[in-house]
Amino acid sequence: MTQTQEALLRHGAEIIHLKGFHHTGINEILHAAGVPKGSFYFHFKSKEDFGLKLIDFYAQQLHAVIDKHLEAEGPYMTRFRLMFEEFRDIFTSQGCRLGCPIGNLALEMSDTHEAFRRRLEEVFRSLRRGIQAFLQGARSRGEITEVHDIEKTADFIINSWEGALLRAKVQKSPEPLDLFFRFVSDWMTRHRLDDRTT
Amino acid sequence: MTQTQEALLRHGAEIIHLKGFHHTGINEILHAAGVPKGSFYFHFKSKEDFGLKLIDFYAQQLHAVIDKHLEAEGPYMTRFRLMFEEFRDIFTSQGCRLGCPIGNLALEMSDTHEAFRRRLEEVFRSLRRGIQAFLQGARSRGEITEVHDIEKTADFIINSWEGALLRAKVQKSPEPLDLFFRFVSDWMTRHRLDDRTT
Repeated sequence: MTQTQEALLRHGAEIIHLKGFHHTGINEILHAAGVPKGSFYFHFKSKEDFGLKLIDFYAQQLHAVIDKHLEAEGPYMTRFRLMFEEFRDIFTSQGCRLGCPIGNLALEMSDTHEAFRRRLEEVFRSLRRGIQAFLQGARSRGEITEVHDIEKTADFIINSWEGALLRAKVQKSPEPLDLFFRFVSDWMTRHRLDDRTT
Repeated sequence: MTQTQEALLRHGAEIIHLKGFHHTGINEILHAAGVPKGSFYFHFKSKEDFGLKLIDFYAQQLHAVIDKHLEAEGPYMTRFRLMFEEFRDIFTSQGCRLGCPIGNLALEMSDTHEAFRRRLEEVFRSLRRGIQAFLQGARSRGEITEVHDIEKTADFIINSWEGALLRAKVQKSPEPLDLFFRFVSDWMTRHRLDDRTT
C-alpha cells in the first residue's frame, strides 16, 4: 500500500465514520488528505474498492485493541472488562459520537452492496473469534462457569455490544455500554445457557 | 393529517427504510406517492419536519405490535416471545433486509441532527416502557424470578435487540434474532442481576 493510499484511507475513515459511505464524496476525502482532485482512480479501482479496503482498515483498528488485551497478563475476565472499557473510553472521548464503524457500515450497506455485506460479515466473524478466545481462556481457568456454546455466546456478545453502541449514540451517554457489560458479565460468571432453552 | 401527508409518509417510510434519510430525495418520495413534483413544501414545512413525523409514523407501527401482544391473553412470557417472533417474521418476510427503522435512523442521524436524536431517544424510551410492561406483568405473576431493575433490564433487551437486528441484516438470516431471544429469555426466567455486579 502506498503512502497516498494510506492517507486516503485514514482520512476517509474519519469522514465516513461520521457521515456514512454514500453521503461522503470522493473529492471530500481527497481534499482532507491533501491529494490532488481527480487522482482518486489512480489510487483505487473504484469507490467500492476503496470501501472494501476501508472495512479492512477499520477491522485492523478493532483487532489491535482486542489483541492487545488478549496478549496481556492477568485473569481473562479482567482483561475482557478492560477491553470493553477501552472501547467505551474511545467512544466517550469522541463525544459519544460515531460508534462502531463496522456496525454503521453494516446498517448502511448490507441491503444494497453485496460485496460490502460479505466483507462486513467476515469482520463480524473475525471479531467473534477474538471474543471466543477470551471465553475459552476464561473457561479453561475456571473464571466462568459452564458456558456451553462459546461461539454462540461470543456472537450474542458482539451483537449486543453493537446494539449498546447504537443506543449510546442516541443517548449521547456511555450508560448503555456499562449496562451491556453488567448484564453480559453477570450472565457469564454465574449462569449457563441450558439446552432446554434451545 | 391530510390524505396526501399520509401517503407521503407511507411511501417515504418504505424508501427511507431501505435507503436512509440523507440518500432519499424528496422528489423520489413525491413520485412514489403520485404527488405532483414541487408540492412537498405545501404538505410539510421542511424535510426535517417530514423526518420527525416519519419517526412518529415508524414508532406507531412498532407500538401497534407491542400493544397487540400486551393486550392479549395468556402468560406474559409467552406473549413476549410471540411478539419477538412477530418482529422476526416481519424481518424474514422482507428478505432479511431493512431491519429496525428507528435503529437505522438512530445510527444515521444521531450525530448530525439533534432534533432527530432527541425524538429517536424518546421513541426508545417509549419502546422500553412497552418491554417494562411485559416484565412487570411477568414478575407479578411469578413467571420470571427476581429481576431487580425492570427498567434497566428492559433497556438492555431493547438495545440487544437492535444489535441482533443489525447483525441479522448483515448475515441475511434471522439466526441472530433467535439467539437474542434464547439468551434473554434464559436470563430472565432463571437469573437475576445481583447487586454485586453493579
